[in-house]
Amino acid sequence: MEMPPVDDFALAKKDALVTRLGEVLPGDAVIHTVEELKAYECDALTAYRCPPLAAVLPRTTEEVSAVLKVCHEMEVPVVPRGSGTSLAGGALPTADSVILGTSRLTDVLEVDYADRFIRVQSGRTNLSVTGEVEHEGWFYAPDPSSQLACAIAGNIAMNSGGAHCLKYGVTTNNLLGVRMVLMDGTIVDLGGAHMDAGGLDLLGVVCGSEGMLGVVTEATLRILPKPEGARPVLMGFDSNEVAGACVADIIKAGVLPVAIEFMDRPIIRITEDFAGAGYPDCEALLIVEVEGSEAEIEEQLSTIEEIARRHDPVELRRSTSEDESQRIWLGRKSAFGATGRVADYMCLDGTIPVSELPRVLRGISDLSEKYGLRVGNVFHAGDGNMHPLIMFDANKPGDLETCEEMGAEILKLCVEVGGCLTGEHGVGVEKRDLMSHQFDAADMEMQMRVKDVFDPSWLLNPAKVFPLDVTADRRAG
Amino acid sequence: MEMPPVDDFALAKKDALVTRLGEVLPGDAVIHTVEELKAYECDALTAYRCPPLAAVLPRTTEEVSAVLKVCHEMEVPVVPRGSGTSLAGGALPTADSVILGTSRLTDVLEVDYADRFIRVQSGRTNLSVTGEVEHEGWFYAPDPSSQLACAIAGNIAMNSGGAHCLKYGVTTNNLLGVRMVLMDGTIVDLGGAHMDAGGLDLLGVVCGSEGMLGVVTEATLRILPKPEGARPVLMGFDSNEVAGACVADIIKAGVLPVAIEFMDRPIIRITEDFAGAGYPDCEALLIVEVEGSEAEIEEQLSTIEEIARRHDPVELRRSTSEDESQRIWLGRKSAFGATGRVADYMCLDGTIPVSELPRVLRGISDLSEKYGLRVGNVFHAGDGNMHPLIMFDANKPGDLETCEEMGAEILKLCVEVGGCLTGEHGVGVEKRDLMSHQFDAADMEMQMRVKDVFDPSWLLNPAKVFPLDVTADRRAG
Repeated sequence: MEMPPVDDFALAKKDALVTRLGEVLPGDAVIHTVEELKAYECDALTAYRCPPLAAVLPRTTEEVSAVLKVCHEMEVPVVPRGSGTSLAGGALPTADSVILGTSRLTDVLEVDYADRFIRVQSGRTNLSVTGEVEHEGWFYAPDPSSQLACAIAGNIAMNSGGAHCLKYGVTTNNLLGVRMVLMDGTIVDLGGAHMDAGGLDLLGVVCGSEGMLGVVTEATLRILPKPEGARPVLMGFDSNEVAGACVADIIKAGVLPVAIEFMDRPIIRITEDFAGAGYPDCEALLIVEVEGSEAEIEEQLSTIEEIARRHDPVELRRSTSEDESQRIWLGRKSAFGATGRVADYMCLDGTIPVSELPRVLRGISDLSEKYGLRVGNVFHAGDGNMHPLIMFDANKPGDLETCEEMGAEILKLCVEVGGCLTGEHGVGVEKRDLMSHQFDAADMEMQMRVKDVFDPSWLLNPAKVFPLDVTADRRAG
Repeated sequence: MEMPPVDDFALAKKDALVTRLGEVLPGDAVIHTVEELKAYECDALTAYRCPPLAAVLPRTTEEVSAVLKVCHEMEVPVVPRGSGTSLAGGALPTADSVILGTSRLTDVLEVDYADRFIRVQSGRTNLSVTGEVEHEGWFYAPDPSSQLACAIAGNIAMNSGGAHCLKYGVTTNNLLGVRMVLMDGTIVDLGGAHMDAGGLDLLGVVCGSEGMLGVVTEATLRILPKPEGARPVLMGFDSNEVAGACVADIIKAGVLPVAIEFMDRPIIRITEDFAGAGYPDCEALLIVEVEGSEAEIEEQLSTIEEIARRHDPVELRRSTSEDESQRIWLGRKSAFGATGRVADYMCLDGTIPVSELPRVLRGISDLSEKYGLRVGNVFHAGDGNMHPLIMFDANKPGDLETCEEMGAEILKLCVEVGGCLTGEHGVGVEKRDLMSHQFDAADMEMQMRVKDVFDPSWLLNPAKVFPLDVTADRRAG
């Protein structure tokens, strides 16, 4: 992974920068010693690390504005950071940048059940948003696996999804408005608790913009009434192809479960060894979950099981208790952790048309043989959002590079069948060199011209999303 | 209503333009005689009329591209037109412009049930999209009142909603991708059948951009399984306030009906005289509709009726048959037509927080007295999208102007309580002078800079959305 060249001038002005930041923030909100900065040198894509010049932890929109004004004046790039759970290096610093952390922006500002929204500061964790409203029977729908830790700020930056987004949509479908600070310190409000206002929908383009357009400090989020109950059914099949066909048939039949999760043999084994969830010994496993009242659950599961039976399942087990439901989900939820126990791995995020699942799974298997690296597949099958885990040995010279190369081939395959590079993790630094496989030069130019509008000097979240040479040209003006 | 100055030069070059257009289109696709152009001089906001230089009716994306190239070279503005059902003058020509009609772009290009989408040319009508998939039990959710006539192209331009958008969202929540032609003739693809791709979400900003960024020629739309059944309940109340409070309580309770429609006394009377739907004699009426299986319908209606009873309804009547359901909806669906029979009217589209319904209804009533014009209210209450109908006499000098002035006051009130100028009709020419009440100069400048990116010469849909003086400055460069 190539990193942008370090700006020596920026390093030289570190002292002046820290002094200026100290003037606009409380003392404990400016972090600048080498030891303390260790915590900010990477996010969850730990293969890449780089200490920033400094990190700041503002408490208010006004403090964020003050920080950005200082950095704008001094021409210092700023890397916004939610909770640092990005799997794509979305919060990876550059050596000449300041990390702007949202961890102190955690207030709940307003809850309004009649208008079905909650307004929070953006550093609040995803799960604690639901925590604020669940006693009244409501919840916030997007549920990334990292929801205990990840911040709404990062969810907005990456347009995060989760297991339940098949039914409820991703962040952009649940985000009503933001307060955002532009790189020059200007505070803007986009959207709001009301419906889409007139004029251009700038909120739409901000969601998923990976922190490149502004720093979101407050978010107005749609909350929904909690369904009465939920229940999963576990299905095992003899091949990935048959499991993929079953997914397509469930959706074609017009049943919309809240989640359809897919695990292949390598992941089933690794997970079962670790979590003992009672998964059967088979080639492919589906967990299909439905929601609603008892009557609704009964009706949907009957339809789904009837479809499954047509595909000769080797296992078809409907959960009969809350305990059993939790056990079924336990395996799925520990899949990443369990894989991490047996190998280093890289988690991809390609998304494809559901009907192409069998073809892409075969292609991944072929690439696994070609490159000699094991792959496990565990993913949100209902919306075609795949998460191939490529396993490698970080201590074996060249293995990471082979893994990266193989990952790139898999993502190109996803684009080839009509899909895209990333479903919910973002491009970050990880996939920036693949952007030209998804977009031609004219498409990318248009996106970069929109970036120009918000951040003309290209100081916000540098070296992300777009190929490095292109970004360098842009910053040079 | 002020109109932009006519460019005499443009008029002078009409012959050359018609010749050039004839070179890139079949003969019957270029309309240029004064008589034939009559059909294009206004949309559904019939108070404003202006014949264009010419109108073209291309059949393919390539023809659209050829037309735009010609107009771009000759610096002739282009006004895209769906079916011309805009209530805000979104398709109103200027005297120096070419109307680009989508009425021949009606093909269905692809239907894919496993991936839950349909791809159509953009001139296809809203209802005929559902028509293409309903035999398999699917439908396209957004349902503007004009759905029999209105085109998907216009739905995307205005980000249209409809009675059912409380549950299913508006166009932006159901649009997956577009093929679009920029003013210089470049063809671009944004989004697609897959999830949100990496990079900036330009699709989000195109949806609702009122034809100012490009001409959409194809759309990939999310289709959904049709619910088993639906049933409305009719409720009458003694005052608007009580009806408003009942709406808020239903939503707070976590029930999400597919529609909550509100009618006040003037509309109830006008509608009843016309349609004889059997509405009770009361101050305010709600139609609340729920969907699902028999068991789900039963459960939801019981909860809703229990809440209604706490507000002392003067009528509470659950439909017991398909006939009765149709009769209940008949009144609501004929409300606009019935009003048109007794007076000229202007239909507003302000949107407010649901909790502010009582306050805004009182404000509208006060303004009605102040200006001496009758107002009827009939609207989508569940998401606060109001449609006050201000009645006036087009033959009485000054009455239209009074009506416009009063309409502006109502919309300002909507913004004041935290709402916005338009829910689903768009800004068009109708509300462009009010944009500065919703957005400050910095907000508008940001939007206009995004417009600059897509259409640097400001030739697409001129004189819309932004105040006229601002637009003129922009075009002058």
